Amino acid sequence: MEIEIITVGDEILTGHTVDTNAAFIAQQLTEAGFVIRHKSSVGDSVEHMEEEFRLAWKRSQIVIVTGGLGPTDDDLTKRAIVKLFKRNLVYHEEILEQIKERYRLRGIEMPAINQNQALLPQGARFFPNKHGSAVGICIAEEGRIFIALPGVPMEMKQIMADEVMPYLRSLKTGHTLAIRKIRTTGIVESRIAEIITADVKLDFGVKLAYLPSLRGVDLRVMATGGTEAEALDKAKAVERQLDAVCTKYIYGKDDDTLEGTVGKLLIGEQKWLAVAESCTGGMLGSTLTSVPGASTYFRGGILAYANEVKTAQLGVSEKILASHGAVSDKCAQAMAVGARKLFDTDYALAITGIAGPDGGTDEKPVGLVFVGLANHKTGYARKFQFGASREAIRIRAVYAALELLRREILQIT
Amino acid sequence: MEIEIITVGDEILTGHTVDTNAAFIAQQLTEAGFVIRHKSSVGDSVEHMEEEFRLAWKRSQIVIVTGGLGPTDDDLTKRAIVKLFKRNLVYHEEILEQIKERYRLRGIEMPAINQNQALLPQGARFFPNKHGSAVGICIAEEGRIFIALPGVPMEMKQIMADEVMPYLRSLKTGHTLAIRKIRTTGIVESRIAEIITADVKLDFGVKLAYLPSLRGVDLRVMATGGTEAEALDKAKAVERQLDAVCTKYIYGKDDDTLEGTVGKLLIGEQKWLAVAESCTGGMLGSTLTSVPGASTYFRGGILAYANEVKTAQLGVSEKILASHGAVSDKCAQAMAVGARKLFDTDYALAITGIAGPDGGTDEKPVGLVFVGLANHKTGYARKFQFGASREAIRIRAVYAALELLRREILQIT
Repeated sequence: MEIEIITVGDEILTGHTVDTNAAFIAQQLTEAGFVIRHKSSVGDSVEHMEEEFRLAWKRSQIVIVTGGLGPTDDDLTKRAIVKLFKRNLVYHEEILEQIKERYRLRGIEMPAINQNQALLPQGARFFPNKHGSAVGICIAEEGRIFIALPGVPMEMKQIMADEVMPYLRSLKTGHTLAIRKIRTTGIVESRIAEIITADVKLDFGVKLAYLPSLRGVDLRVMATGGTEAEALDKAKAVERQLDAVCTKYIYGKDDDTLEGTVGKLLIGEQKWLAVAESCTGGMLGSTLTSVPGASTYFRGGILAYANEVKTAQLGVSEKILASHGAVSDKCAQAMAVGARKLFDTDYALAITGIAGPDGGTDEKPVGLVFVGLANHKTGYARKFQFGASREAIRIRAVYAALELLRREILQIT
Repeated sequence: MEIEIITVGDEILTGHTVDTNAAFIAQQLTEAGFVIRHKSSVGDSVEHMEEEFRLAWKRSQIVIVTGGLGPTDDDLTKRAIVKLFKRNLVYHEEILEQIKERYRLRGIEMPAINQNQALLPQGARFFPNKHGSAVGICIAEEGRIFIALPGVPMEMKQIMADEVMPYLRSLKTGHTLAIRKIRTTGIVESRIAEIITADVKLDFGVKLAYLPSLRGVDLRVMATGGTEAEALDKAKAVERQLDAVCTKYIYGKDDDTLEGTVGKLLIGEQKWLAVAESCTGGMLGSTLTSVPGASTYFRGGILAYANEVKTAQLGVSEKILASHGAVSDKCAQAMAVGARKLFDTDYALAITGIAGPDGGTDEKPVGLVFVGLANHKTGYARKFQFGASREAIRIRAVYAALELLRREILQIT
């Protein structure tokens, strides 16, 4: 069954509110195996709403609308529904009693304007709202379903969970959807696509999407099947192929993060980590400690933004700075070695580079970054050339450093 | 001119990605005085895209699409455009050269798949992409404009700022909207609203919005007028009132950031800053160094995640840790004093706290944070109780520290 979601309100259309309601509803439904056909937003205009509702009602079997159900003048959803379905509004004593009761409990007299909330289109059933006065509205006709929910996120979520999802699940037969996300880093989208296109076979009903970000490329496998088990089998078959051809780039699945993966590896090995950061200025440490429980493997670090700090705290020699510069493989390596000694850890990571926008030269352009790694035996550095903005360069540098440590621990070459 | 925005991608339709692109574009356009007529999302299907594009092209004068312009098989936007406009794809040598150059700078050979990126619908102009290989596409026909942008937020934002907004503004006549943003921190929304409601008078045609975030509360003044000058006058009249009643909380206007403001103050006074961070693990340093040119006032810092680091590097006494604990005003103060000495700076900021989700007690609950400040004369600490998630607590702590320094430098009490 194909579903379409419409969010109502000027604040969404103008971008002043990010449309998290639509994302929430879509996610709930997708996870339950429904297919979202379309999503849209319209402003507080009866005419535009009616037009959009009509279009949706024509093309999708299930239409879910949120917003515009409040008691005030700019809440127009019911008026648009009445126009579309050509029905009268009917008064529901039961709803009014519930609203009155809620105000009584709060010791406030119910404002008269709330009487509107007890009016529903003829023949509609309603979904109770535990947190507010706007009930959900449901019209079922000719094998199609039209649902309108309040736009206040807490109210919408309660009605979705308690009423809409059980109702829609009860109607459901046929196709379900399974999703697997495989997270990679250290390889560009077009390169991993080449590898996958050459070696991975997609069965009918399976889609593969590449989702690139500064942190890496996620591979999302979506499979449909007659049953949940069948869909999941299909998705997992592709996942196994991806695991095989992209092994070294995969740091996790679904909601895994690279910093979380590195943390688990350090916990597993009972190892300690320290950092030394120049151009990232603390972003590597901040990323590592965004993981709850990082105190069991992250000891601390030096933000060596000024060269004096690199020499005084990390023991980088004046000679390295003079002959190679602060942005060099030698300096990155010396920073890592120095941090490991200072903090007495098993590993240390160091980052030095030119984050820009100024400070680049022909020889050392903006985006040039060296990542150093030290362990008990040795120290080494890797060179990277990242593009784009200061922020992008810093984020890429942090993930390159985390990935270097992951590959060091797992001995991936 | 009415505009409509279409975002493309299964990940948006399924709710796995919240559609922040559409919100960003809508906000930019609204602030420039355009009216958003409609927003929608479609999945990775040429058929659904073409249908949606056709509908949009019919009902709105300007259509902006994001997503689906990558080089891989699931990027189908260009195919849908070609179907809608019945045009062939034409090869642009210039685009390919730019992509090759980007790969060359990074020292990577360009994967062959990227050649697709140089194909554009006949007669289309293109908007250069500084951060990636997918250029923006623009088709102008019969007084209507169709624009397609990549879906990677960084790329989309750059092309919007550098190309699309100047282009659309050039088409527009009769500006009527003026916006001023006044940025505050260190005060909760309801309290600043009380102050403003009591003392600030809004003329007809002026709207004031409170935009709270983890970093503070922004006040957005939107004024409409017959001319740009009239609208701006109205907005500025309200801005002057806000400046007067909220003085001590205002750190900047429009795109100013607190870290940028603090940086400017340090440059103005020719002072140096160091940091010592426990629960924020580098986020304060990372935030400070997100500002280009921070090397003229930020010397470095200590990430003192483990208590050993607090004593060994920062000289926090064992006695303070034993009798007051690492999360205490005494420890925060000692960390700041120690960092200032170690790095020989004019100021030092220190943060220690319980970011959670675990580690809280009745006496020291999750969210308890102490911020320390040291200067040449003295050291002191302030106590904060922040709510919500680990991430929120850390961000609030960083901004509380920056604000403490701003008020110290400006002697605001």
